[in-house]
Amino acid sequence: MDLELWYTEQHTENVRFSIKIEKHIYSAQSEFQRIDVFEAREFGRFFTLDGCMMITEKDEFIYHDMIVHVPMATRPDKIKNVLVIGAGDGGSIRELTRYKTIENIDMVEIDEEVVKVCKKYFPNTACKLDDERVHIYYEDGLKFVRTKENEYDLIIVDSTDPFGPGEGLFTREFYGNCYKALNENGILVNQHESPYYNSYAKSMQRTHRRIKEFFPICMVYQAHIPTYPSGHWLFGFASKTVHAIDDFEPEKWEALGLKTKYYNTDIHKGAFYLPTYVKELLESDEEIED
Amino acid sequence: MDLELWYTEQHTENVRFSIKIEKHIYSAQSEFQRIDVFEAREFGRFFTLDGCMMITEKDEFIYHDMIVHVPMATRPDKIKNVLVIGAGDGGSIRELTRYKTIENIDMVEIDEEVVKVCKKYFPNTACKLDDERVHIYYEDGLKFVRTKENEYDLIIVDSTDPFGPGEGLFTREFYGNCYKALNENGILVNQHESPYYNSYAKSMQRTHRRIKEFFPICMVYQAHIPTYPSGHWLFGFASKTVHAIDDFEPEKWEALGLKTKYYNTDIHKGAFYLPTYVKELLESDEEIED
Repeated sequence: MDLELWYTEQHTENVRFSIKIEKHIYSAQSEFQRIDVFEAREFGRFFTLDGCMMITEKDEFIYHDMIVHVPMATRPDKIKNVLVIGAGDGGSIRELTRYKTIENIDMVEIDEEVVKVCKKYFPNTACKLDDERVHIYYEDGLKFVRTKENEYDLIIVDSTDPFGPGEGLFTREFYGNCYKALNENGILVNQHESPYYNSYAKSMQRTHRRIKEFFPICMVYQAHIPTYPSGHWLFGFASKTVHAIDDFEPEKWEALGLKTKYYNTDIHKGAFYLPTYVKELLESDEEIED
Repeated sequence: MDLELWYTEQHTENVRFSIKIEKHIYSAQSEFQRIDVFEAREFGRFFTLDGCMMITEKDEFIYHDMIVHVPMATRPDKIKNVLVIGAGDGGSIRELTRYKTIENIDMVEIDEEVVKVCKKYFPNTACKLDDERVHIYYEDGLKFVRTKENEYDLIIVDSTDPFGPGEGLFTREFYGNCYKALNENGILVNQHESPYYNSYAKSMQRTHRRIKEFFPICMVYQAHIPTYPSGHWLFGFASKTVHAIDDFEPEKWEALGLKTKYYNTDIHKGAFYLPTYVKELLESDEEIED
């Protein structure tokens, strides 16, 4: 009989998602986390950090399209200086470097091992880290932003979940520093967890509430990412002055002629139209354990 | 040690979705299919037909909101005579009966056992089957529509997947007969599978192409349904004359004062804004095995 290997992720205590794998091709413990790379027939290569799915070759385009093109298309000609926190797989950088108007990208990744592994095993994702506009800092993003003031047009928080090395990137202190690090029309985009399972919904609510303490414009948008828990994933869009729909001029982005597999200027708007139960969770003033 | 029971659904040959269950509370083989009912902590009660997830107490509202309120809200004052095919769990009927303007609902379910099981185990879903406007026919939907002409304002195909007892509801003959059974401004809505995994995407493409052979207006919309394969689920909206967005007047639906947990008049539009890769699959003229 053939050997069957399955990677199983525990999405909640009561839900499991399993992927049949061909091969477990890499495993190591970095200073910060466990890194594993797998090869699967359905998803191509994928990697996990501490046993949580990060990206798969099949669908990383969805996450990266939505975390990058939504803010970029809102102000395609005005965003020149970008800070990316996390993003060791290089997918967000790949999408950002497609914009010629961007002059500088600071990328702050806590774990150099993630970048090394992705350069080796995900050459189509970690393919633009050598772009001359990209400056990589192997540091804690929480500390990095403390020193910045009125500097960036866009901050993308492309982090892991709010536990382990990514925890600091969901704190009040961090969001306050992001506010300070952004210039007047700056935009903060972050991965915002999922509304569906209770445990994720609580951190979604907490995150949203904390960002709202600092930013007058605070929106949430969604995408279908089947390899993340529930497949219903959210992103936060926060800004001092820019509204992701009212200030959006689709023609400007269309004129750039970028080809994307998930993002388009219709979905730019549609993604912000949330199900009623998600809106209610976001607007709820029910107490959440802090 | 405690006994652990897991329900596992094979979403593709290489992907499994598993739910921890408290109890397997019912199992029977009807004339048409195997019916199982489970109790789970995360999802409440759920039932499967031939091992495929149908509805869970936790999220049946998503599917039923989207299959009913999208067409109803498009013409809330004009839809009086409705045909529902499948829908043995009663959820679509429950949502339809909230519209006072509807005068008649014919429900055609092939398997009386499904209705009996749902009345017993899902009293909050199968709760309006006794509404005096509802007429249930335990027949094959494919045969039922053959005899109908210029009769319905709305046909909802709330079916299982395109194999087993639901197979006939994905044929050219069936869509042609639906066209004939609808009146001039009639709308056909059907569950349209998923774009994400290749096997589902093929039946989505085939279904869309077949409906397009008959209906001049042929649209597709999406919802986040985490318990279905990939969680990215589609519905078809087809009509002779009515456009789901251009002819949609949100104020009319808002005026009804219906409370819904997923549907709202923003998501009505947003749901039709599909990711680029889904649009490309739907528009592709690549040959599909028939």
